[in-house]
Parts: sequence; C-alpha cells; structure tokens
Amino acid sequence: MNNKLLVLGTIAYDGIETPLGSRDKILGGCATYIGLSASLFSNDCGIVSIIGSDFKKEHLKIIKDKGLDCSGVEIVENSKTFYWKGRYEDNLNSRTTLETQLNVLEKFKPIVPNKYRDSDILVLGNLDPNIQLDVLNQMNSRPKIIILDTMNYWIERFENQLEELIKKTNIISINDDEARQITNEYSLLKAAKKISNLGPKFIIIKKGEHGAMLFNEDKIFSIPAIPFEEVYDPTGAGDSFLGAVSGYLSQTKKISFNNLKSAIAHGIAVSSFTVQKFGTENLLNLTQEKLSLRMNELKNISEFEIKLNF
Amino acid sequence: MNNKLLVLGTIAYDGIETPLGSRDKILGGCATYIGLSASLFSNDCGIVSIIGSDFKKEHLKIIKDKGLDCSGVEIVENSKTFYWKGRYEDNLNSRTTLETQLNVLEKFKPIVPNKYRDSDILVLGNLDPNIQLDVLNQMNSRPKIIILDTMNYWIERFENQLEELIKKTNIISINDDEARQITNEYSLLKAAKKISNLGPKFIIIKKGEHGAMLFNEDKIFSIPAIPFEEVYDPTGAGDSFLGAVSGYLSQTKKISFNNLKSAIAHGIAVSSFTVQKFGTENLLNLTQEKLSLRMNELKNISEFEIKLNF
Repeated sequence: MNNKLLVLGTIAYDGIETPLGSRDKILGGCATYIGLSASLFSNDCGIVSIIGSDFKKEHLKIIKDKGLDCSGVEIVENSKTFYWKGRYEDNLNSRTTLETQLNVLEKFKPIVPNKYRDSDILVLGNLDPNIQLDVLNQMNSRPKIIILDTMNYWIERFENQLEELIKKTNIISINDDEARQITNEYSLLKAAKKISNLGPKFIIIKKGEHGAMLFNEDKIFSIPAIPFEEVYDPTGAGDSFLGAVSGYLSQTKKISFNNLKSAIAHGIAVSSFTVQKFGTENLLNLTQEKLSLRMNELKNISEFEIKLNF
Repeated sequence: MNNKLLVLGTIAYDGIETPLGSRDKILGGCATYIGLSASLFSNDCGIVSIIGSDFKKEHLKIIKDKGLDCSGVEIVENSKTFYWKGRYEDNLNSRTTLETQLNVLEKFKPIVPNKYRDSDILVLGNLDPNIQLDVLNQMNSRPKIIILDTMNYWIERFENQLEELIKKTNIISINDDEARQITNEYSLLKAAKKISNLGPKFIIIKKGEHGAMLFNEDKIFSIPAIPFEEVYDPTGAGDSFLGAVSGYLSQTKKISFNNLKSAIAHGIAVSSFTVQKFGTENLLNLTQEKLSLRMNELKNISEFEIKLNF
C-alpha cells in the first residue's frame, strides 16, 4: 500500500555559511528537502511549488529522477527562483538571515494538479499560511492526513489564518520555540495540549540536537537525535525530518501513535544524514541500506533494559 | 550482591524560589540528595559530610532512617550548617544564587570512617576538588568505581586539581554546559572524547529537561527526560540522578555499558520525582513500587519499532 502524497513548499537556491564552510546558490527549499526525503518511502509523491527560468535543468532532473512528480511546479519565464542566504553561528543553534530574495514567491498562486487533488496525505511545508490554506481548499475532499509546518515569521504575522489551518490539521510538526511561541507555554507538554485543543491529534515537536517529541492524547514519545562530532549544515534538517515522517506514513494503513513513533524515528535518521553534508548532498546519495543501518544505530542509542536485583 | 558505597558531599539548608512557590531552610545539599536516592538501591551506604549544631535532629533522623550511615558526618558545635539560597527563572533552566553562607564548610576536613575506607564505590559529589582529592586519598585502595561530579565554579578555579581528579576517575557525571566548559568543545561527542582521553571510560552528560547521554569508547546512549506540565523545583535533580546511578551500580557485579544504561535510566526516573515537589519531599516518599511504574513509563516514552513496507 502506498498512499498518494502531495507536498507544498518552496524550491529555492540557498547561500549557506557555517563554521565548517560555505556554499552559494545550492539547491534548497522546504519542498525540495521534504520531497527528496519522502521519495525514500513513497513512489507517488507530487510537489506544488514555483521556480524561475534561472532554475537549472540539472536540478529539476535531480528532483524528477527521485520519482517526484513536478507537474505542480510552475516555471515563471524571465523570473528568478526564490533565494535565501543565511549564516549559522558556532553552536549551529542560531542562524541569521543575510539575504532574502522572494523573486517568484512574491506572486505565487499555487495550482494543485488534478491528479493530486485526491491525495491521501497533504504536507503543508513552511510557507505563508494563506498559500497553505489555498492549497488545502483546492483538494477534492479533506485528505486523510494533513501535516502542517510553520515558523516564527508566520506565527507573528498571520495568527488568525494559522489558527484556522491548525484547526483543519491532524498532524502538526513544529520546533520547540515555535510551540512555545504559539501557546505562551514553556512546558512542551502544556504547549502540546493547548495546540491539540485547537484540533490536531498529533503534535510533533522538533528539538534540533535534542531530538523530537510526539504528543497524542495522554501518550508521549521522546526520541534523541544522533550526536555527531561535526554538523556541517543544519539547513533542511527539519524538512528532511518532515519528509521522512510523511513518506513513512504514506506506507501505513492508518495513523496511529505507534506508526507515528516509527515515522518520527525514520525522520530523525534521515535528517541525521542531511546535516552531515551541505545542502541536499547527503540526502541525494541516501539509500535504503544506509538508512537501515542508521535506524539500527538509532535503536542502539536509545534502548535500555529495566532490571534490578541482579 | 551489594557493594559498599561512600558518598562525599554537602548536607545543607536551602532557600528556594521558583515560579511555583518558595521554601526556606529546607533540607538540601548534594550528599543528602545522592544518599537518599542511593538508599533506594543500596543497603550499605555511608556519607562523609559536615553540619553545624543548628542542624535539626529530625533531619538527621530522616537521613539515618533511610539506612544511610552518618558516622562520617561531622557535627561542629557552635557552628551553622552550610546555607544556600537561589531563585529559578521562568523556564527553570537558569538559576541565580541569592545567598551563600559557607559556615561549617569553610573549614571542612573530611575524615573517612575506617569501615568505609574499603568502599567499592566512591561518589565524589560536587565540592571543592581539593576536598574530593583528600577523600580519595584516604581510601585504603583505589575503589572499583569512582564517580565524579563538579560544577562551573570549580572548573574555573581549580583546573589542575580537577584534571588530576578526572584522571583517577572511571565515571564522570556532569552537565552539558560543564562538559563544554572543560573541553572548549560544543559537540558533546567531541567533549566526551576529550574527557575520556584524560581517563574516565564512562562519560555521563546530564542535559536537564533533555535527559542524559552516556559515552563509552565508541558507544553512545541517549535517554530523554520525562516531560511534565509543571516542574516545582529543579534543585537536587542532578544529585538525585547521580545517587540513583551509584546505587544502581552498587547492585551490579561490574561496570559495563549496558549496566550503566540501566543505571542512567533509573537516574532519570528518580530525578523525575525530585523535581515534582520542593526539596527532598518527593524523594523521601519514593517507594520501589512508584519507581517501577515510572520506569515503565520511561520505557514507553522512549521505545519505538523499526518496520517498513507494511
């Protein structure tokens, strides 16, 4: 079984500076990371996005070669692809945006291809909530699974639209900071309960180097990240995570707490590859075999026995 | 099997302010928390510490009633017990010391009782490294297990003594900030390797609300903390953790990576009780039954399955 998956998000060129090096105009954007990760699990995944005529054919080929359907990716003539440039500080936890060129994003009116209007899973990648709502409204019926991501920028500017979106969502996947910002609660357990009261049954909270948590009714799951000596580039880690979670769910018959736990574990494993190289480099070379080994490693890292009185 | 355990540390009166309330002159000190936690696992645990004549008989009784041997606790006539007062900010991650009265601690010359000079496990709780070294040197032979804790204050002032101590230690249990401070490395994996190169085979790094990690050669273990809606008082959480780890190890035949994983899981569980009430209140009422239930909860929180292609 493989459910139809639709991903909304940006395809971008990124400029990245980290303590270990820098790259410019490399392939990026949340839809790129989500799609590439999802393609490890899903064989029917479409992308809704927008690019300029400067977007290189080889980059489009890279995405298509992973089996991702790009019929929903609009190409605007005489325009440039969304560009973002950022710098990560020493500990890689804080980043500064150095440059943002919205370019084609400024007039983005997404159109969902007919063949994806009946998708089982809709992933609303980090974008203007109005665009996310627009795509959701184009679906024939409400998808079985709607997964929402967002960020501080949108939380501050579009509180009402975001609340409307959250109400319609069954899974939300956000950072700890964002969960705290939305709810004004420091305790992630309290924050998750508040968000859950708005609608979503499953609250995924990403904690960067500290892993991720899942809240569902009274159930809690917490998983560590895999520690590294060097993180080369954290860009796209959260989106790779989200892509793996969505892709994993596209293989399951239903959403359940246990399925989501496994999905999140795969998300942690896939994103651990992403941060080990710049941009999408490691993700593009990721195979099922490498992922399997990493999953075993993750299992080893987090397993323990309860035994007393030897 | 139950190995003999010796704990060095402070017995104190604490004043505590947190967003959820305040207490003054309540029973505290690292040896208190370590000892009370260890007593859940060990039936042969001695404490080396110092108190003033103001120390209440009822408090000494509380400690002794847990089976802890207080023959190494010096009582100084006409002197006052060590007093610490602190305030925790909203997120409980940062604390400010409001008052420190060293009192009896100023002239503390620990004397290890003869019956504990052959202890199998020596826990050097957070204190002046010179005092920690003094106690270590009083042992008849090098204990099988030496567990060291320290804090920023000592790292800044006694780098050489601390390095000498670390060299003689097989297990070190410190906070993430402290590991980074000692090694000048942000990556905890790198920090652990650097510390391990000094001597200790097992590096435990406590991460507060994010749980704890264990590093041993190339092996890594990472365990989350149990999330709560409210943390009442984080005081003594790290010491409760350390006490449970030590107590657990006193029941094992040898130190091994797997034994330490289980020990750390028990440490996480015991400290989760500590933070749910002020001071030692919850720790004093903790039973094996409650701990067992909490261990199952912790196991549920951190367990996941690897399965693909349903």
